[in-house]
Amino acid sequence: MSDEHTPGGGTEPSPPVSPPFQSIRWDAEERKLVILDQTVLPDREIHRRLATPGQVWQAIRSMQVRGAPAIGIAAAYAMVLGIDDIESKPLRGIDRQLHELADYLATARPTAVNLMWALDRMNRTVQASRDLPIEQIRERLERAAKSIHEEDRQLCAAIGGHGASLVPKGARILTHCNTGGLATAAFGTAISVIWHAHAAGRLEHVWIDETRPRLQGAKLTAWELQKYDIPGTLIADSAAGTLMAQGKVDMVVVGADRIVANGDTANKIGTYTLACLCKHHGIPFHVAAPYSTFDPGTPTGSQIEIEERDEQEITHVGTTRIAPKGTRAYNPAFDVTPGSLITSFITDRGVLSPPYAFSKAGIGTPGV
Amino acid sequence: MSDEHTPGGGTEPSPPVSPPFQSIRWDAEERKLVILDQTVLPDREIHRRLATPGQVWQAIRSMQVRGAPAIGIAAAYAMVLGIDDIESKPLRGIDRQLHELADYLATARPTAVNLMWALDRMNRTVQASRDLPIEQIRERLERAAKSIHEEDRQLCAAIGGHGASLVPKGARILTHCNTGGLATAAFGTAISVIWHAHAAGRLEHVWIDETRPRLQGAKLTAWELQKYDIPGTLIADSAAGTLMAQGKVDMVVVGADRIVANGDTANKIGTYTLACLCKHHGIPFHVAAPYSTFDPGTPTGSQIEIEERDEQEITHVGTTRIAPKGTRAYNPAFDVTPGSLITSFITDRGVLSPPYAFSKAGIGTPGV
Repeated sequence: MSDEHTPGGGTEPSPPVSPPFQSIRWDAEERKLVILDQTVLPDREIHRRLATPGQVWQAIRSMQVRGAPAIGIAAAYAMVLGIDDIESKPLRGIDRQLHELADYLATARPTAVNLMWALDRMNRTVQASRDLPIEQIRERLERAAKSIHEEDRQLCAAIGGHGASLVPKGARILTHCNTGGLATAAFGTAISVIWHAHAAGRLEHVWIDETRPRLQGAKLTAWELQKYDIPGTLIADSAAGTLMAQGKVDMVVVGADRIVANGDTANKIGTYTLACLCKHHGIPFHVAAPYSTFDPGTPTGSQIEIEERDEQEITHVGTTRIAPKGTRAYNPAFDVTPGSLITSFITDRGVLSPPYAFSKAGIGTPGV
Repeated sequence: MSDEHTPGGGTEPSPPVSPPFQSIRWDAEERKLVILDQTVLPDREIHRRLATPGQVWQAIRSMQVRGAPAIGIAAAYAMVLGIDDIESKPLRGIDRQLHELADYLATARPTAVNLMWALDRMNRTVQASRDLPIEQIRERLERAAKSIHEEDRQLCAAIGGHGASLVPKGARILTHCNTGGLATAAFGTAISVIWHAHAAGRLEHVWIDETRPRLQGAKLTAWELQKYDIPGTLIADSAAGTLMAQGKVDMVVVGADRIVANGDTANKIGTYTLACLCKHHGIPFHVAAPYSTFDPGTPTGSQIEIEERDEQEITHVGTTRIAPKGTRAYNPAFDVTPGSLITSFITDRGVLSPPYAFSKAGIGTPGV
């Protein structure tokens, strides 16, 4: 299920504006989803070959694959793996079985809406092809998953392009968690903004929040920025305030797991604290996300289900216990930042400014 | 140099209002300073027996003994150990040698002013007794160190008593770092407020910031509150904001390493972020500290030297590397919270409210 290799050894050559690693790859010949295991980075670069929907569910839950766009892509491919599995079972309503599979995959992580968005799109493909021979359903599902995957590359590029225009020359940008090539199909959301600003010669430096408890900043973003030769410095999350007070932060750019109708945004725990700090210091606070992260059907942030993860993520670092036995911990994986604290949303369709009132008919079109 | 024991095994019985452990003890018979090594808690309770000023310097620098009041006490005893050392050397101005020793001890950690305060007091004892026989100088230094130590117990109790009166019934208090019996001679500063509020039946619950990078909250405060049977829940530092937004925090109480004339306060990195969050949410933000933490000779926070510690405290957790090799990190051990964000100072002399204008003539007497 896994093969380890060093960077550059044995992977296909990438197009010039793709990251020098692939977080998700569909092996069409062997019909396997190949993911770069994000739980063992930066120590080891291990690719896992997932053959069943259950393996994908587990990889999402355990955060071997993580990042709102990436888990959507992985879940789409899991539907393709699912139909291979169904074929070998007695047939009883392929479409019903696939819809049940989508429901199951959606339980892997509740907060990031991209997961539900990708599964909805796959469900629509199932509906539209339910009367076709199974071989054709499979083909269409595979095409739909590849299309979600390919589209995400374009979304990343568009977000980066729009975002870079907001970055002043010589900017010192602070970011949280990991929102780059590991979390998406290309250069990411917030990190795509950073990457494009760097390519345009506008970036001076990145402050990387380590992002407790899972340390995605220390483990993943620091690793990614090294791959891109972008200068970054790691900080404890709690040091962001003093950096701002010292005038060392020009803007904050983060990603998102769900953006609801009024602009309230669920993102990695700690995002809300950064938004409050930006407000206090008069620093722009931007959220970068593709249209698939918008959930205009949910009116406000208070309706977002916030995933609570195991206390052990707080009482331990990795497998090492840090707190005494018997210590209780509270571990919400996300928080909600009110739209009123968000300077702009950097989307694939452009930069959106307040007031925010997103609708199903026109995500990204305020007031529509 | 060390002996390990389990709690309650072999220690002298404590008076009823002392913590069930001793972070600092002077062994007058063997002339050794016995400290509870805070770098190996909560896994192991090891007492180290320090025999020379160099060992005390190293224990302070490596944070085996830490907490502003505790390092002041330890440094005072280091002067006593120093005179034992001087006696065995050829005599050349005992007072000059002791003053040089004090200068050396002050370099162990630059930010906490209690260290300089205790050494100043010991220097004054040296000055006053410089013409006496060495045996009498030693006796006076030992008496002075014991007096600093004993006085700190009383300061802790007074701070706790004054602070508890500010705590509303059923309070959920959030605290940062460790400010308890490990950091002082008795129940601490901020934790003494919590302890007294708990004893008075006013406390519902404590939120414990884990306090990256050194994790004093997870390792020390969680351990201490367990010893006191006070209910606490550990959180990632970056979760404080969302707890406040959810209405789950009634007040924040922290300690201090240095409070200057205008009320600007240096304390553990992350304190300033909490103060900004309190301001945003309208939550009281209190600083608990004895008079020895006040430095009215320094006009504002911008004159406070902020200790920068090793990058490895950020790139590693303990000895485990978390960030990729080559990652740079910025690791200020403290930040400065402006007096304007501080609801009150809870001191041994009472509760001080703004405006703050502390003077040498009357610390704790605004405007004097």
